[in-house]
Amino acid sequence: MTDRQSRHRNAMRNLKSHVDEKVAAATEQRGLLLVFTGNGKGKTTAAWGTVTRALGYGYRAGVVQFIKGMWECGERERLADDANLSVHIMATGFTWETQNRESDTQACQAVWADAARLLSDPEVYLVVLDEITYMLKFGYLDIATVREALANRPAEQTVIVTGRNAHRELLDMADTVTEMQEVRHAFNAGVQARRGIDY
Amino acid sequence: MTDRQSRHRNAMRNLKSHVDEKVAAATEQRGLLLVFTGNGKGKTTAAWGTVTRALGYGYRAGVVQFIKGMWECGERERLADDANLSVHIMATGFTWETQNRESDTQACQAVWADAARLLSDPEVYLVVLDEITYMLKFGYLDIATVREALANRPAEQTVIVTGRNAHRELLDMADTVTEMQEVRHAFNAGVQARRGIDY
Repeated sequence: MTDRQSRHRNAMRNLKSHVDEKVAAATEQRGLLLVFTGNGKGKTTAAWGTVTRALGYGYRAGVVQFIKGMWECGERERLADDANLSVHIMATGFTWETQNRESDTQACQAVWADAARLLSDPEVYLVVLDEITYMLKFGYLDIATVREALANRPAEQTVIVTGRNAHRELLDMADTVTEMQEVRHAFNAGVQARRGIDY
Repeated sequence: MTDRQSRHRNAMRNLKSHVDEKVAAATEQRGLLLVFTGNGKGKTTAAWGTVTRALGYGYRAGVVQFIKGMWECGERERLADDANLSVHIMATGFTWETQNRESDTQACQAVWADAARLLSDPEVYLVVLDEITYMLKFGYLDIATVREALANRPAEQTVIVTGRNAHRELLDMADTVTEMQEVRHAFNAGVQARRGIDY
């Protein structure tokens, strides 16, 4: 064995022992609360990736789209025929299009009722609350209501919350938080949002 | 209209005009190079979310898994029957399990040949190079080779690169870069990786 091979083997042995230790220490099994926040691309996309993953094992998943629901959405189309998936859409679209606080609040409360039903159903393995952070920020939804529904959900249920500026209480409750930070975005350099990639 | 409604309407009008301006300025249409990097959860997941999205419109997609390929992978299972998807797996698993630099390099070069084929096929709308960053870091692959294949790919093709510590040259070439930063991870608090959520 050359020196380089030997150094590589030793480094990888150390890494393996580190990984093995961490795996051995992680023994708790339960549903998780994940928050994908930050201003970068990938929050909703990662949530749909997880939905695809859960459906791959035959688990039931529910997605509640608080903002982008009126848009064309390739991943929803791709998975729409899956009997284990339910999708609930807030029927107003972007709040800067409607410009009406009262109707937005009503639409939000209506789709929250679907979310609350999912959050109390032990058959649902994964719930995505896509862009719910904006509902809390705009005051369409109350943080206490959301916190209580999350705290009382079935123990095996995982929830993913997405959106910028996640509420401090959501961050505090979460098991896993990723901040998707924008380093660069093609849109800001004049490139159009791309079908099948951005939506 | 109450004061509160009126303030809301004005704020949303301003936001709408800002959004509309940005949309109008984004006129370029072409394939993108996206990099999902950083130490947080969501990089590979967002890549698979985008694959699901592209398949939803009937586009062809190719995924090359440089590290996790030997693992169970729910999203691959869920989409495996899609004729528009091809998946190529580096057949050694984690490099800290094999502990053999020479066989890892060979396995990497073999699956890179599949990647290079995808990167030269104008029928392929989306290519995911999952965890290729580690191959560059370990020296199993040469950055010049990768850069050239990316630079010469079909103009309409989008490529997603995932993995920690993305090479500076990849970051420089990219149209969109998101740094997925770990704020908190359940695994570090002793919670097991969860089927259908983490893999």
